[in-house]
Amino acid sequence: MVEIKKDVIALVDWLSSFGKDPQGGVSRLLYTKEWKEAQEGLKALMEKDGLTTTYDEIGNLFGRLEGSKYKNETIMSGSHVDTVVNGGTLDGQYGIIAALLAVRYLKEQYGQPLRNLEIVSLAEEEGSRFPYTFWGSKNIFGIAKKEDVQAIADFNGVPFEKAMNDAGFGYRDESKPLRDDLKTFVEIHIEQGSVLEKEKKSVGVVHSIVGQRRFTIQLNGEANHAGTTPMHYRKDTVHTLSKIVVMIMERAKQYGDPLVATVGKVEPNPNTVNVVPGHTLFTLDVRHTEKDIIVKFTEEIVAEMKKIAAEMEVEINIDLWMDEDPVPMDKHVVEILEKQCKEHGLNYRLMHSGAGHDSQIFAPHVPTAMLFVPSIKGISHNPKENTSPEDLAEGVRALTNALYELAYKE
Amino acid sequence: MVEIKKDVIALVDWLSSFGKDPQGGVSRLLYTKEWKEAQEGLKALMEKDGLTTTYDEIGNLFGRLEGSKYKNETIMSGSHVDTVVNGGTLDGQYGIIAALLAVRYLKEQYGQPLRNLEIVSLAEEEGSRFPYTFWGSKNIFGIAKKEDVQAIADFNGVPFEKAMNDAGFGYRDESKPLRDDLKTFVEIHIEQGSVLEKEKKSVGVVHSIVGQRRFTIQLNGEANHAGTTPMHYRKDTVHTLSKIVVMIMERAKQYGDPLVATVGKVEPNPNTVNVVPGHTLFTLDVRHTEKDIIVKFTEEIVAEMKKIAAEMEVEINIDLWMDEDPVPMDKHVVEILEKQCKEHGLNYRLMHSGAGHDSQIFAPHVPTAMLFVPSIKGISHNPKENTSPEDLAEGVRALTNALYELAYKE
Repeated sequence: MVEIKKDVIALVDWLSSFGKDPQGGVSRLLYTKEWKEAQEGLKALMEKDGLTTTYDEIGNLFGRLEGSKYKNETIMSGSHVDTVVNGGTLDGQYGIIAALLAVRYLKEQYGQPLRNLEIVSLAEEEGSRFPYTFWGSKNIFGIAKKEDVQAIADFNGVPFEKAMNDAGFGYRDESKPLRDDLKTFVEIHIEQGSVLEKEKKSVGVVHSIVGQRRFTIQLNGEANHAGTTPMHYRKDTVHTLSKIVVMIMERAKQYGDPLVATVGKVEPNPNTVNVVPGHTLFTLDVRHTEKDIIVKFTEEIVAEMKKIAAEMEVEINIDLWMDEDPVPMDKHVVEILEKQCKEHGLNYRLMHSGAGHDSQIFAPHVPTAMLFVPSIKGISHNPKENTSPEDLAEGVRALTNALYELAYKE
Repeated sequence: MVEIKKDVIALVDWLSSFGKDPQGGVSRLLYTKEWKEAQEGLKALMEKDGLTTTYDEIGNLFGRLEGSKYKNETIMSGSHVDTVVNGGTLDGQYGIIAALLAVRYLKEQYGQPLRNLEIVSLAEEEGSRFPYTFWGSKNIFGIAKKEDVQAIADFNGVPFEKAMNDAGFGYRDESKPLRDDLKTFVEIHIEQGSVLEKEKKSVGVVHSIVGQRRFTIQLNGEANHAGTTPMHYRKDTVHTLSKIVVMIMERAKQYGDPLVATVGKVEPNPNTVNVVPGHTLFTLDVRHTEKDIIVKFTEEIVAEMKKIAAEMEVEINIDLWMDEDPVPMDKHVVEILEKQCKEHGLNYRLMHSGAGHDSQIFAPHVPTAMLFVPSIKGISHNPKENTSPEDLAEGVRALTNALYELAYKE
């Protein structure tokens, strides 16, 4: 364990040096100089570890340890190399580092696997430079199309295509077949929540990634003088909002975990101390691991919101603008991950992911599962993002055990 | 009645021409060219009507019809000549016009009164150009001090004193005694609310002006990922706010009229769809005609807010930054106004004022009461501010009757 801790900390420090942000944390956006240097650095390191490296056309980096027996069966692990602006030092890159160490340990201890073991450093997941997410993983499965990115540019007006070409990459050759050797994908990632920390667990085995619906709701009442308008003449949209929020939160708690409902944005108008707020816009974000429940819950909420608005004599417009299905992880892979944690006495729990990950792109095509390590105070997308060295090491251990099971066993 | 309607509309149109805003309505700010022209125009009109005009040092304009018997007893009526930026054509100036017409009609019909009848066009009430309100009325009673305005400037950086001097006025001579002849003040004003309209009344007799307390409340919880934070781990300040608002509104309705409570401003942070809002600032405005009730209500609310915040594990900071006492109107003057309305068959009701007026400055020094006319849809401080010609005329009639009673009767 002492070795693993040292190794993982050293690699996190090293990889974080590519794109170190003077304002703290790491800013390493797709196809930038820092991004390219990180990929090249990882490539060199993989080669030093005796792996065969390749880039695909768009810039996903692969490091492969050839299997001895099942030449067309690849066990893949990794995560994304890009970060958000002012991101932390673990989101994404910890998954690459953990895969790198796991493969190194396995090679050192057991030599060549039966199946190919492959590390992937995915080009992009966050959508931080361009308004497009999962560019890396989507290209592996031919889901990302030229048309998706041909018209987009970054905040400086640099077109996606130009940035890609300048970094030495281009579009995937759509005439070429997609790879058919992927047998299993395992991604390890920080939790970005506080469940593991609060429950004093070192590792999470993820059985599904939540689906979500997002709404924007506009309430139109009547702006009135706060002094001269009696209570019973008001069409107060902050009062209406408040009744709606209390209703949503009560119902969300009745449904219980893993349902979460968030009213994150509230914008009253005119938003001033002495005017009854005539208009209020707010957002609602609902997530759950089961589609049926998301549908049932949001349909109930929509009906209740309309009822409350009608009682308050306030007009309501409800816009559903995001509707993503939950992604279950592969049962068999989850079982393997759990069995390994159990057998090696790891302090783990089964859980879902409330955030999106590359694994949700892999899962419909390849048997996939995820491991989590705790995020201190649940913080992520922030220079303060952190995980204890002990937990980082436990994560590597869990991944190593799982990859052993997947690549070295008949 | 036809005559009064015509007269009042003609005068409103004429006075609105001083400071007519190209964007609609009237913008006539203290000590501007338009303001000076309006005062000069009123002065000329008063003189044409046979009144003796004077300015005081700071620019309040008075038009006086001398009494025959009680030389040291003055019945005063009027309102403020300044407007807000993009204000309507009635707020303030209708009170001057109504007083002007009332005195004109009384003089024509009954000649010289027993007591002095005096019209006042108060220099300033709104605080629209400089951050100071009631400059006009406060100077009459020696409440406004040099020190209050010496350091203030308008939005263009023009100091108060310079603007005043450029308009031909200066500070009140504090060595001179205040006037001691004021026996009664009656102000007529638009309601700026919708009570009269909704109850189909033409005139309101105001028995008191509300007091108010204003609070800013800061809620500090925890900003968390909307997907990865289970409901029971959250310290959600929009949820806390919502519980507080529902509680305030329920309790306000239990208290009943004339209590009003408004949460007009809500500012969550970070205010984005996928983050549990960790911080929320909001305002609370509470008004009532009785100080005791304002105190009792707000003390209860403060205790309840603290209780809710504690239950939600959210920190709460409550800042009371405005605490103005209610101002009761003079009972005897209110009786006279009401009696006149009754005797002349006016469609009136007794009511309070939920907004502030010059009368609240007069009331502690001079027996004072107010009359209201309806505001269509309750709109004011807006070019759409309006009152039907019939109601404007009824207001003039009510004021004329009252001034007759006050100035012509023994």
